[in-house]
Parts: sequence; C-alpha cells; structure tokens
Amino acid sequence: MRIAVLGTGVVGRTIATKLVQLGHEVTMGSRSTDSEGLREWLGEAGEGTSGGTFADAAADAELVFNCTAGEASLDALAAAGEGNLAGKVLVDVANPLDFSRGMPPTLAVCNDDSLGERIQAAFPQARVVKALNTVNAQVMTDPGRLPGAHNVFVCGNDAEAKASVRELLQAFGWPRESIVDLGEIGAARGTEMYLPLWLRLMGALGTADFNIQVRVP
Amino acid sequence: MRIAVLGTGVVGRTIATKLVQLGHEVTMGSRSTDSEGLREWLGEAGEGTSGGTFADAAADAELVFNCTAGEASLDALAAAGEGNLAGKVLVDVANPLDFSRGMPPTLAVCNDDSLGERIQAAFPQARVVKALNTVNAQVMTDPGRLPGAHNVFVCGNDAEAKASVRELLQAFGWPRESIVDLGEIGAARGTEMYLPLWLRLMGALGTADFNIQVRVP
Repeated sequence: MRIAVLGTGVVGRTIATKLVQLGHEVTMGSRSTDSEGLREWLGEAGEGTSGGTFADAAADAELVFNCTAGEASLDALAAAGEGNLAGKVLVDVANPLDFSRGMPPTLAVCNDDSLGERIQAAFPQARVVKALNTVNAQVMTDPGRLPGAHNVFVCGNDAEAKASVRELLQAFGWPRESIVDLGEIGAARGTEMYLPLWLRLMGALGTADFNIQVRVP
Repeated sequence: MRIAVLGTGVVGRTIATKLVQLGHEVTMGSRSTDSEGLREWLGEAGEGTSGGTFADAAADAELVFNCTAGEASLDALAAAGEGNLAGKVLVDVANPLDFSRGMPPTLAVCNDDSLGERIQAAFPQARVVKALNTVNAQVMTDPGRLPGAHNVFVCGNDAEAKASVRELLQAFGWPRESIVDLGEIGAARGTEMYLPLWLRLMGALGTADFNIQVRVP
C-alpha cells in the first residue's frame, strides 16, 4: 500500500520503518523538506521510501498516519491539504500533550472533546481512526517485546476504516484478540485522557516500555 | 480498627461490609440518618456496626473512607467536620463524574487539578490517599474474582498513610506486588482521568467487572 507518515519524530520514524519492513511504499511528510528527522530517516530507510512536505506525502497516499505532535496536528493536516485526505483512512496516533505549563504535561483538549474528534470535525471527508496513542513507539510496532497479552485500542466512525487499521495492527504483531474496538471517534477522549495515568506509571515503573492488559472474569 | 465509611451507595456499602468481615468496627456515615441505603446496610451488616451522620461517623473513627459521589464529596467532608478528619487517614475512592451533560459523563474537575487534590487542599490536616477508584465495588473488595494479576493504584503525600492503605488493600485480597504507588496526590489526576477509558471499556466489554494489568518487559 502507498502510505504517508506525517511527522518525523520517534513515533513517525519508528512506524515508517516498520511499514517499509512490511513491504509498503512509504512517503514521510515533514513541515519542511530540510527537516533533520526526515533526512536521517531517508538515510536509514533505503529503497521504496521517499520524503517531502506534508502535502507531497499525503497527495499520493492511500492511507495516512498522523504522527505529528498533538499540538501541531491540526496545522500539519491543514498543510497536508483537505483534498489530499478526503476519502482516505487517517490513523491518528497523536496525543494533545501541552508542555507549556511544565511537567507533567496537561492535555490541550480533553473531557468534552478530544484531538481525534477535532481532526474528524476539521476534515469530515477523512476516515479518522484513533489508534496506538496509548503505548510508546517501540511497543506500537513490536508488541511482542512485552510478556503475555496486552491491548491496543481503536475508535472511529467508519467501520471499514477500522477494519483496515486492525489489519495493519495485526501486521505490526498485535494479535486479533488484543485489539479492542471502543466505538466511535468520541472514545478518543478515553484513550487520550489515559495519558496522565500513563505518565505517572512511567514514573513509577522507571520505563516507558509498558502497556496494559484488560482482565475480565 | 474503628473505620468510618462515608456514603451509602453501592461502593460504600460493599467496602463497609468487607471491613466488617475483616473484623473492623465500622460506622457508616450518611447525609441523613433517614437514608435508605444506611438503613438497608445496618439491617444486613449485623454486629459491630453503626450508622449516623457524616460527623457522627467521622468523630470516633481512626480511618475514614470517602465513598460519596464525587460531586458531593467536598460538601460531605465539610459536613463530617475538618476537626474530625484532622490527622486521620482519608481514603478517597470517589470519582468526580458529572452526569449533568448526559452520557457518557464528563469529569467535574480534571487536567490541571483533581478531586483528590481538592480534598487534600480543603482538609490540609487529613492524610489523603487516593485508591480503588479505578475498579468497580466488587473488584475493589474481591480482586480474586478476576483471573491472573491486575493492579490497583495508590497516591498521596503521606508515606505512612499510604502504608496503612496498602495493608488494608492486602486484607481486601490485593497481592502486595499488585499495588502500585504513583507518588504524591497529584497522581489522582491520572487515576481519575482514566475513568473515560474505563467507561468506554465497560461499553465495549459489556461488563463493569474488569481491571487492567500493567505489563513490563
């Protein structure tokens, strides 16, 4: 599949590399084609990869990953172009973390709204699926690094789009039964508002390399 | 130990009953001594139990559980009396759920503050420990009903108070290694903001009888 990965930070580069390994044709999009992250990744990634602006990346893609920083996501997607996102599955991996008031960060949007919902509202023709934002980049693309079963969550308004994302997640190594569908895009409030607990757990555990398993009787 | 349980809903009654079974002397506190929940519980609970107003219950207690509805907690604790809480361990089990805007509920406080912090700020002499608010009443008092390991979280500013609560949690059936200390009371933001995810999980799983296990490598 032709996939655009928007954002050249650790999350974007880790996902893009995994997608290349899985045989996809990946274009990484950045605010500027001078981006250090973009140049580094292109240097490492090898064949079948390319880079460009957010709009360059989104234009030819069949599916788009939003891996930009949450506070920059709406601007980045606007730069990608509403027309370049229309009709496409848009996997939103971002968290709206606000570091402006120090540590730990707060959320720039929460409680009665979420970044996932704002993206869906701003780009109504995109088929937004919130996913993977509850784990760090290593766990996203290599869930087997943690022992036993643990879960990843998807939500969105388009059932077919969620099915496409589930397939990608299975290719990443997530067992089918570990992928929990939380319903429509409003459930993004739940997975984004989990971040403050995730950050406290990271502090208590001394590592970002963890995830949760849901236990039922 | 002489323990006050404030709040006569399902959580208060379930915790109070468990404490009686463990041999504690329990007084249940209610806004009014005419409360149906209070009368029902006293009818079921038998010896070594009593009921009264929030102030009656807190006055003689060595340790106090806040099991009132989150939106009513600050008023209930004010009615219990600042002097009756001073120096005592106050286990805050409440979640600040706001149902006034329909379902799913939002949080009445979150992001840069929490109910746990507000309680600690309003009653600076109380030794507040946030705990158990991430599971339903049955799991709180009978964690073994779920298969395998799963976690409960504590946070608060007083290490000795947290140690007392850990002992109670172990008596409830939580293995020592399943109790995760998230740090000071500010971590209550994390466990309270987990509620929107908990509510979506309840919808997806079709049951409130679940919990999460944290997986590390």
